[in-house]
Amino acid sequence: MTLQKLTAQEQTDALAKLSAWSLVDGREAIKRTLTFKDFNEAFGFMSRVALYADKHDHHPEWFNVYNRVEVTLATHDVQGLSIRDVKLAQFIDEISKQ
Amino acid sequence: MTLQKLTAQEQTDALAKLSAWSLVDGREAIKRTLTFKDFNEAFGFMSRVALYADKHDHHPEWFNVYNRVEVTLATHDVQGLSIRDVKLAQFIDEISKQ
Repeated sequence: MTLQKLTAQEQTDALAKLSAWSLVDGREAIKRTLTFKDFNEAFGFMSRVALYADKHDHHPEWFNVYNRVEVTLATHDVQGLSIRDVKLAQFIDEISKQ
Repeated sequence: MTLQKLTAQEQTDALAKLSAWSLVDGREAIKRTLTFKDFNEAFGFMSRVALYADKHDHHPEWFNVYNRVEVTLATHDVQGLSIRDVKLAQFIDEISKQ
């Protein structure tokens, strides 16, 4: 099955459930900033996301400084958002809830 | 011993030996971009740097997308560069040579 870009309606529905995420200005991508106790906790989070990302062959763009991680998600192959971004965002929300 | 900011001469001497690094425009910081085979290799590199960083309590600012890692080093406590940045840059150069 070819990976499809989300339709406008699918994107709206997905974002309604991803309340911590917002659209990136001027790009079809979503972003979220996460703040942790310290670097150790931030990089622990990044390690969990990295294992997920490599397993699913879908990788984030991210910036980290000390306890802060800024994550941007988009799907290069569709030049926009796909179900893979929604699933990765859900995974990130799930592991950062605890 | 209080952490000292590098003098102009010390900074020049240090940068002469860190040929892969350059000064960041408008900031007393140094940066280097590294490219790896894939995300797995890039994150493996980041994991090694993270262990070093947490052990030495001196952390990078970094951005990663797939196989590319952009690293910026500066020392918040001295509002510029210190010996800790030089040592972290040397460590990064050493592990990315192989």
